[in-house]
Amino acid sequence: MNKPPKKIDLMSEQERNDYHAKKMEKKKAARDKMLATKTKEKGLIIVHTGKGKGKSTAAFGMVFRALGHGFKIGIVQFVKGKWGTGERDILEKFPEQVTIKAMGEGFTWDTQDRARDIRAAKAAWEMAKEMIMDKSYKMILLDELNICLRYDYLDIKEVVEFLKNKPIDTHVIITGRNAKEELIEIADLVTEMSMIKHPFRSGIKAQAGIEF
Amino acid sequence: MNKPPKKIDLMSEQERNDYHAKKMEKKKAARDKMLATKTKEKGLIIVHTGKGKGKSTAAFGMVFRALGHGFKIGIVQFVKGKWGTGERDILEKFPEQVTIKAMGEGFTWDTQDRARDIRAAKAAWEMAKEMIMDKSYKMILLDELNICLRYDYLDIKEVVEFLKNKPIDTHVIITGRNAKEELIEIADLVTEMSMIKHPFRSGIKAQAGIEF
Repeated sequence: MNKPPKKIDLMSEQERNDYHAKKMEKKKAARDKMLATKTKEKGLIIVHTGKGKGKSTAAFGMVFRALGHGFKIGIVQFVKGKWGTGERDILEKFPEQVTIKAMGEGFTWDTQDRARDIRAAKAAWEMAKEMIMDKSYKMILLDELNICLRYDYLDIKEVVEFLKNKPIDTHVIITGRNAKEELIEIADLVTEMSMIKHPFRSGIKAQAGIEF
Repeated sequence: MNKPPKKIDLMSEQERNDYHAKKMEKKKAARDKMLATKTKEKGLIIVHTGKGKGKSTAAFGMVFRALGHGFKIGIVQFVKGKWGTGERDILEKFPEQVTIKAMGEGFTWDTQDRARDIRAAKAAWEMAKEMIMDKSYKMILLDELNICLRYDYLDIKEVVEFLKNKPIDTHVIITGRNAKEELIEIADLVTEMSMIKHPFRSGIKAQAGIEF
């Protein structure tokens, strides 16, 4: 069965260009109007969650973007050993701007020790609170905090209450799958990363520059 | 109505720790077994798509991770002006390792000129092909290529055919919403970023370190 040709396929190149220009003019007008209503500035609570890749990597990208703006940035890794040498080596080139604290003890399936995990999570959270309250930091990344909340190593109520009262200008980025509803509730920006296709499926191993 | 207590809530702290250790031991064994089957290494075709944020930012994070490993990296921006000063300033600190080509002419709703957009897209694609074939580059980022494919500024068949025959060790990262099926088909790793919550909703404007 033949489909009827689309209107756009019957146009000459010139007609198509004109049609495009009109459509884009409308799109720009709508966008400009929308942007004009956005006038507030404040430190955001940002959550990267979902089962896909890119949660920590996008946070890491934001850290670099903020570095480019001259911001001071604090990073607390709630799960140690997750970041590879690539990330660390490059962040260590900016010692005046970046402070990294790796407080965790590896993924919880590596330690297999719940009591130790809880102690590590609590110590990391104390460190995070201190950094967030220090207004010289403009951005704080709490990497894999969600995993500690998911296993109830930390009290979600306490974390939410603290974040609601953070210094107004400080951006806080939280990563990890299974973000709790209570956290999403208070966040300004929430992105879910979903896996559509993963190279493990084709038997390809973790590689430098990609996974670590 | 009272729910019956969960088995885990009736456990003592010690029982809960033991239960956790057993569960995590199993999880680690399953994970180790899975990882042992992943033995191949090769340059990947990576796609970041979806309507959420973090597509370019996660790619940018991968570029920095690769920088940390000492890789040479090529970046072609198919839409000029999308990256802010934060990104550029920081990448320019690594001139021996990073080459950036901003070939586009702004978002298509800014230019409103389809013929010019097509010329710019074609020039950017020529540049991209040259970089990909140059084996001194270990990673190539084609930022917002998807937007050019979506509007058929570039022929998806030609792009797919070229990428299928790229040098085996080179990683190619492609970003932009509305990734075409044909591209997803040949990709090794595809992540979709979805927007769950966006600060525009609360009237907050684009801010340094977050959007640019």
